[in-house]
Amino acid sequence: MPTTHRFEPTHYHITIGTHEPVLRIAPGDTVVTSTADSGGRDRDLKNVSPPGNPQTGPFFVEGAERGDVLAVRFDRIAPNRPQAVTSAYVSYSVVDPQFVTRFPVDRGRIQWHVDVARGVATPEGPEALKGKLEVPLDPMLGCFGVAPDRGQAISCSTSGPYGGNMDYNGFRQGATIYLPVFVEGALFHLGDGHATQGDGEITGNGTEISMDVTFTAWIHRKNKPIGWPRAEDAEFLMAAGNARPLDQALQHATTELLKWLEEDYGLDYSAASVMLGQCIKYDVGNVFDPAYTMVAKVAKKYLEPFKRS
Amino acid sequence: MPTTHRFEPTHYHITIGTHEPVLRIAPGDTVVTSTADSGGRDRDLKNVSPPGNPQTGPFFVEGAERGDVLAVRFDRIAPNRPQAVTSAYVSYSVVDPQFVTRFPVDRGRIQWHVDVARGVATPEGPEALKGKLEVPLDPMLGCFGVAPDRGQAISCSTSGPYGGNMDYNGFRQGATIYLPVFVEGALFHLGDGHATQGDGEITGNGTEISMDVTFTAWIHRKNKPIGWPRAEDAEFLMAAGNARPLDQALQHATTELLKWLEEDYGLDYSAASVMLGQCIKYDVGNVFDPAYTMVAKVAKKYLEPFKRS
Amino acid sequence: MPTTHRFEPTHYHITIGTHEPVLRIAPGDTVVTSTADSGGRDRDLKNVSPPGNPQTGPFFVEGAERGDVLAVRFDRIAPNRPQAVTSAYVSYSVVDPQFVTRFPVDRGRIQWHVDVARGVATPEGPEALKGKLEVPLDPMLGCFGVAPDRGQAISCSTSGPYGGNMDYNGFRQGATIYLPVFVEGALFHLGDGHATQGDGEITGNGTEISMDVTFTAWIHRKNKPIGWPRAEDAEFLMAAGNARPLDQALQHATTELLKWLEEDYGLDYSAASVMLGQCIKYDVGNVFDPAYTMVAKVAKKYLEPFKRS
Amino acid sequence: MPTTHRFEPTHYHITIGTHEPVLRIAPGDTVVTSTADSGGRDRDLKNVSPPGNPQTGPFFVEGAERGDVLAVRFDRIAPNRPQAVTSAYVSYSVVDPQFVTRFPVDRGRIQWHVDVARGVATPEGPEALKGKLEVPLDPMLGCFGVAPDRGQAISCSTSGPYGGNMDYNGFRQGATIYLPVFVEGALFHLGDGHATQGDGEITGNGTEISMDVTFTAWIHRKNKPIGWPRAEDAEFLMAAGNARPLDQALQHATTELLKWLEEDYGLDYSAASVMLGQCIKYDVGNVFDPAYTMVAKVAKKYLEPFKRS
Repeated sequence: MPTTHRFEPTHYHITIGTHEPVLRIAPGDTVVTSTADSGGRDRDLKNVSPPGNPQTGPFFVEGAERGDVLAVRFDRIAPNRPQAVTSAYVSYSVVDPQFVTRFPVDRGRIQWHVDVARGVATPEGPEALKGKLEVPLDPMLGCFGVAPDRGQAISCSTSGPYGGNMDYNGFRQGATIYLPVFVEGALFHLGDGHATQGDGEITGNGTEISMDVTFTAWIHRKNKPIGWPRAEDAEFLMAAGNARPLDQALQHATTELLKWLEEDYGLDYSAASVMLGQCIKYDVGNVFDPAYTMVAKVAKKYLEPFKRS
Repeated sequence: MPTTHRFEPTHYHITIGTHEPVLRIAPGDTVVTSTADSGGRDRDLKNVSPPGNPQTGPFFVEGAERGDVLAVRFDRIAPNRPQAVTSAYVSYSVVDPQFVTRFPVDRGRIQWHVDVARGVATPEGPEALKGKLEVPLDPMLGCFGVAPDRGQAISCSTSGPYGGNMDYNGFRQGATIYLPVFVEGALFHLGDGHATQGDGEITGNGTEISMDVTFTAWIHRKNKPIGWPRAEDAEFLMAAGNARPLDQALQHATTELLKWLEEDYGLDYSAASVMLGQCIKYDVGNVFDPAYTMVAKVAKKYLEPFKRS
Repeated sequence: MPTTHRFEPTHYHITIGTHEPVLRIAPGDTVVTSTADSGGRDRDLKNVSPPGNPQTGPFFVEGAERGDVLAVRFDRIAPNRPQAVTSAYVSYSVVDPQFVTRFPVDRGRIQWHVDVARGVATPEGPEALKGKLEVPLDPMLGCFGVAPDRGQAISCSTSGPYGGNMDYNGFRQGATIYLPVFVEGALFHLGDGHATQGDGEITGNGTEISMDVTFTAWIHRKNKPIGWPRAEDAEFLMAAGNARPLDQALQHATTELLKWLEEDYGLDYSAASVMLGQCIKYDVGNVFDPAYTMVAKVAKKYLEPFKRS
Repeated sequence: MPTTHRFEPTHYHITIGTHEPVLRIAPGDTVVTSTADSGGRDRDLKNVSPPGNPQTGPFFVEGAERGDVLAVRFDRIAPNRPQAVTSAYVSYSVVDPQFVTRFPVDRGRIQWHVDVARGVATPEGPEALKGKLEVPLDPMLGCFGVAPDRGQAISCSTSGPYGGNMDYNGFRQGATIYLPVFVEGALFHLGDGHATQGDGEITGNGTEISMDVTFTAWIHRKNKPIGWPRAEDAEFLMAAGNARPLDQALQHATTELLKWLEEDYGLDYSAASVMLGQCIKYDVGNVFDPAYTMVAKVAKKYLEPFKRS
């Protein structure tokens, strides 16, 4: 019978790798925990880690083995303090090279007020925006994943097949993520909460904030690996590709979605192509890191006539 | 007083360039016309042009001069026959290179039935999809634009600052497009109708179909050029960048949107960055052609407190 | 019997397209002519054209038809004045985005002295280089090509299968270029001479100069098209790909070279792969324009055992 | 006084990371050791490691600290057996996507005979090449580097600022490599010997072989970090950038070379731009891995008038 664990982190990792697990859980168990913000500050604004998307965990899921697929449902992602921060300018990576000269070399930072009761975030600068911009809260986790292949430990400023810093605003409360398992126990890490975030994380951040997070993990399938993170919510099936250029991330995501429709819905590549050609949606994750993220998705309503295996 | 012109095309162009105008219109005039499908077939399935997104026009807008911005509102885009066609497989450009070997070399075509009364398109193949897929109609124009700079004539299979084959499903009925003017009269071309199209035009086509199109054109502003196509509809401001890789298209689009917010809403680059960082959306146009298309957009509701100049 | 024509240009084109020929020549004929510099100045520094790599020509080669391959040998490329110019900084496109802020917004220009007798070019600035840098002359043409497909006229600031602004320093005196023919007479254009140029044309220019050029053109083969420009000199077979990103240009060039070894030397794709895997060289052309250029080449000595068909 | 150490590896690493050092050496010391081939086979064709460019080391250089620059001179790189292997086809990454369908799905392998006495490598297949291709030996190391930043351990199938699998055929005997130090002792790893290799490692391999390697390491400079690997040989200064797309690798490499000329030769960015614009050469390393490698280089003869600091 599933257990609910409460886990308060005492240390964090700035790589995703085969680190010592902080907790062992059974498949189906739920974990109530918290994450520091990307700069390493907790709910009390105390510095608890070096910056760089510090991760809570890893959590060892019993029975998970290389070749399996881990499922993690984000049951709750909730900002646990009112202070957040973003950059004051968009990143060098998202504007024309010659346009960069219009920005100051020191790009600066903007404080935000996150009002969970009203469900909005408001910037405290620059002057022109004061009192004039309210962004609806849509909390998400920018960086999470499982220990990667080959014994690697990879910086939380990038991403790959194992997850990582994807900064996709669709990885929100209610979404279930599917990740390929490379090591025994999968070793799930999570962090980098954003109270809000536009597509692309174009300033290099969302409204960076510490979070209370509740998740439930289980083994989605045994010994039938996937190539890239998959996810679903009430409305969509999603597949994420992580690479540069964005073209290659899109190729990974589209390929993974085609494979999913073939594996679980029996649609061969032509049938899946004909459907996706008219129905696919793409969402842009991070276009700031060494690897960019593209998500390919399709509404589940189109798949209803095709029984899921 | 604005005039409504009816123009029935008798020939088409497969480049966008400084071609002889088919009609001269005054700013504010409306044109009721039609487009052939991308393969050069009209409403009666008669071959009226070589294939390659043949364009109706060009239309000469009186008073438009180099440096101005032309506005074109798509008042009506309506399929004028029930037959459409798509490819049977996604393009080489959107899947992993090694995945391409899973597809037949001859990729084949799929017929679709477009039912305007019911508002849906249904494929007539492959077998697995028959009777099981209905896609809501959302008619759009994949390729349109003005004569480009330097006396160029550019194939309708690509795109640039002047527009071209962008295949963005947001360029639908009700949208107003803003295009930089390079030559006297602007010389507006249009064609390549799709009854439906997923993001990215990943099979290399939407449901390709001939259209009845009504548009209204005017000079949006004088001697204050823009860098890339802009557009708006009831909900969004949009800017399109056309280039490869997709990263560069995204840079063009984001830069253009930042400039727009500065020019028309008085938001300096920091204020615009802070807003867009949490509010921007990206949509993927064509990822099939020599130039890919990325659209950066922001909901107009965020701009309400900032008076439009 | 081949004829030698002397042709002094009286006008220039800043697109490559289906323009009125300036001269009709028979296959095997030689043309002695000249080119203006990229800024439109001739041997006397007189402005004879708008800037933008103005082209001499086009030359109509009798008998050349769509599907054929045109050969052009550069018999002589010789600077015809001592004054040349370059930019004072490398392009935005070749440095890290954040590094761009180290450069002045107005990048400035540097005059060079081209000493044909001594065979060197020397910059007249900046101060630090005066009297300390001599670059051996290695004259080349940065931009040349034939009229492209579909009736296009394409700006001389970019490139494609038809040639264009490739800025490859291997296209020097003594090289023979093979170009796909798209229109009757091929319509060969040439211009954009550089007295010297590093790889990549990273300042956006070589030492820009007017040239005396002698070339000989013939029909290399009938009705057996090529996909991209090919070339050869005493030492190498070369194939050029033009696209962005550079990865795609490399793909075009490598594919074209594989096809060449198969067509003319009977090496199937595995044999050609095994040879090229250990013997291929890549050279970087333009990394400044909308399309970048990559050249794949192989030393002819490796092909001696394989009889050329 | 410098010591020469002999080190025979007993285990290997398939990541580059902060692993337990196998030997501690003083700055200036020389190490005589050996490397297994990329598939994990030693001089006797015995499997001594899992495949994936297994690394000998790491070697701890006393006194090396974060922020320093480690120098490693490859005194000797010599194949220590006659058997090598390559793929039978070029990689998916270097040809046009649609061209991939011309290759068999199972790409196969080719054996090579490496004749050190005669200084040539000859393939034992395919049939068409037998007895007809001799490639001069030019031994190099495809993969080497120091422990990366942030405690990362990164797969030997990719590369970064720390080095890694760059597969650049200029990293041969006689070259001195400069690497940024991230951890105490630098922790130098090396492996992946190729008896020969064309540019780009386009089949995904050189003639893969085990090597006898002698190297000398010292601390090149203290607390003055570099951004990317630098190198020099008798003729050139070189800087390597590792990223995708190749455009970005080229940006990293060019920026690093500009910085080098400023730091060590006192050439400001304009002077360095003007020189490199006419003198730079680019070489293509690996275009097969998740990160591609581009090398920017300049002949030392051009720098002679500028005293090296």
